Amino acid sequence: MPYEHKIERRVEFSETDMAGIVHYSNFFKYMETAEHAFYRALGHSVVMTQVNPPMGWPRVHAECDYMKPLRFEDMAEVHLLVKEKKNRALTYVFRIYRVNGERVEVARGLLTVVCVAHENGTMRAVMIPKELSNQIEVAPLELLG
Amino acid sequence: MPYEHKIERRVEFSETDMAGIVHYSNFFKYMETAEHAFYRALGHSVVMTQVNPPMGWPRVHAECDYMKPLRFEDMAEVHLLVKEKKNRALTYVFRIYRVNGERVEVARGLLTVVCVAHENGTMRAVMIPKELSNQIEVAPLELLG
Amino acid sequence: MPYEHKIERRVEFSETDMAGIVHYSNFFKYMETAEHAFYRALGHSVVMTQVNPPMGWPRVHAECDYMKPLRFEDMAEVHLLVKEKKNRALTYVFRIYRVNGERVEVARGLLTVVCVAHENGTMRAVMIPKELSNQIEVAPLELLG
Amino acid sequence: MPYEHKIERRVEFSETDMAGIVHYSNFFKYMETAEHAFYRALGHSVVMTQVNPPMGWPRVHAECDYMKPLRFEDMAEVHLLVKEKKNRALTYVFRIYRVNGERVEVARGLLTVVCVAHENGTMRAVMIPKELSNQIEVAPLELLG
Repeated sequence: MPYEHKIERRVEFSETDMAGIVHYSNFFKYMETAEHAFYRALGHSVVMTQVNPPMGWPRVHAECDYMKPLRFEDMAEVHLLVKEKKNRALTYVFRIYRVNGERVEVARGLLTVVCVAHENGTMRAVMIPKELSNQIEVAPLELLG
Repeated sequence: MPYEHKIERRVEFSETDMAGIVHYSNFFKYMETAEHAFYRALGHSVVMTQVNPPMGWPRVHAECDYMKPLRFEDMAEVHLLVKEKKNRALTYVFRIYRVNGERVEVARGLLTVVCVAHENGTMRAVMIPKELSNQIEVAPLELLG
Repeated sequence: MPYEHKIERRVEFSETDMAGIVHYSNFFKYMETAEHAFYRALGHSVVMTQVNPPMGWPRVHAECDYMKPLRFEDMAEVHLLVKEKKNRALTYVFRIYRVNGERVEVARGLLTVVCVAHENGTMRAVMIPKELSNQIEVAPLELLG
Repeated sequence: MPYEHKIERRVEFSETDMAGIVHYSNFFKYMETAEHAFYRALGHSVVMTQVNPPMGWPRVHAECDYMKPLRFEDMAEVHLLVKEKKNRALTYVFRIYRVNGERVEVARGLLTVVCVAHENGTMRAVMIPKELSNQIEVAPLELLG
């Protein structure tokens, strides 16, 4: 469905820190990986570099609530849901679960990204391309919880 | 003063991404670096590993608003301010500036950390040690803006 | 076969740098991911933390030759081969390929790891556990090329 | 002197892994940071992006021998020495020391980088710019040890 996407990934050793858990900054990488997989699932894998001017999705807001740690070799599921769709911006929420053994929610994230064109070394907010925008729906409220 | 701390660091090449700017997840590393420098400035550089049981500061909430990009070799100033002090938790706000050339605010962050003891592979929230807690004040409202 | 292992992974945005290619340090993460997948394939996924004293595999030597760049969303195959097996150390070679579109070798790596026990904050080289050592063979010379 | 450069940096929490030591891939970031500081010291901080076509220094070979671990908050000194200068390539060796407390060598690295021009999405090896090349000397053999 065009309002959600799920990926799984196994926690890698280099993502842990000396506390023995995934470093908190890496949750933001996991969210982004789910976001890009979502674009790919919609057929827009190359949206960023192969249009002219090249487009990008800089983040304007990111947040995460951490409930439980993830550890080395845990399987993490990242569930992306579209929370808001504007002309130039998208807001996603993310539910992150540990799915080896019992399924446990470990974190909730939120990301607001803006569609920009890269020109002459600067970035300018632009309309989200229609082909992409038309495919994206806002998730039902009960899922966004 | 015991309610703020400032660090400077130069953006490294490995912190940039293919959009030519600092990857958004690295702002969370910059915040943490300022937080740890704050503890060191208070004389608690080794608080984490050399007490028994070992203590740590897992994050329960992190967020960042991105206003402008940081680029390779930019000098970034990270200004930490204590926003809230509880028995077992601290909340920091961060103002991040680009300080080469004109001083420009590029991002604002917020971090809530909980004091825990690591025992038998689990973490348990504990009181912030008195020696540390006594030194930390909440910043004046007008600075927290 | 117990002398090789292959993994595939898609290049993530956060692994690129401002030159638009995977940062060279990340190839060392890819190699390690293949190494850990190799141990898992042999049934030793938890070897590190759940024995007493806890074991680890610090690296004593690492190297990589870079032939071609990897870019965002490329599929990379990492092919691990056991080059040398000693009592306390293993040496792996890695062939890294881009496998989307035409299959192209992009890098060759080498890693020597030592089996250690973590005790009282120090590391001591120890014999590789028999159950693991018995399963690992050195790859045929013609494969190591 | 134009054949060496030294930087110091404090190990950050996010650079450690669950073994409690700096992840081995980060030593390659430390080397690169010293390399870029070397260019800056020679007055070429912006060599990469502000010439036309933009230049870069992709790595063709990287290696590191690890003798001792680095831990959180250790001060590391990275000592770069020019080992070889060719028309289109430079080879550096690196001595990495822990310099808090007693000065201890913890790692030795080597990096071969090629000067390239980025044009139309590809990279082409080019002569190192004269202004830069003229300033760089090969270190005396006794220092390269």
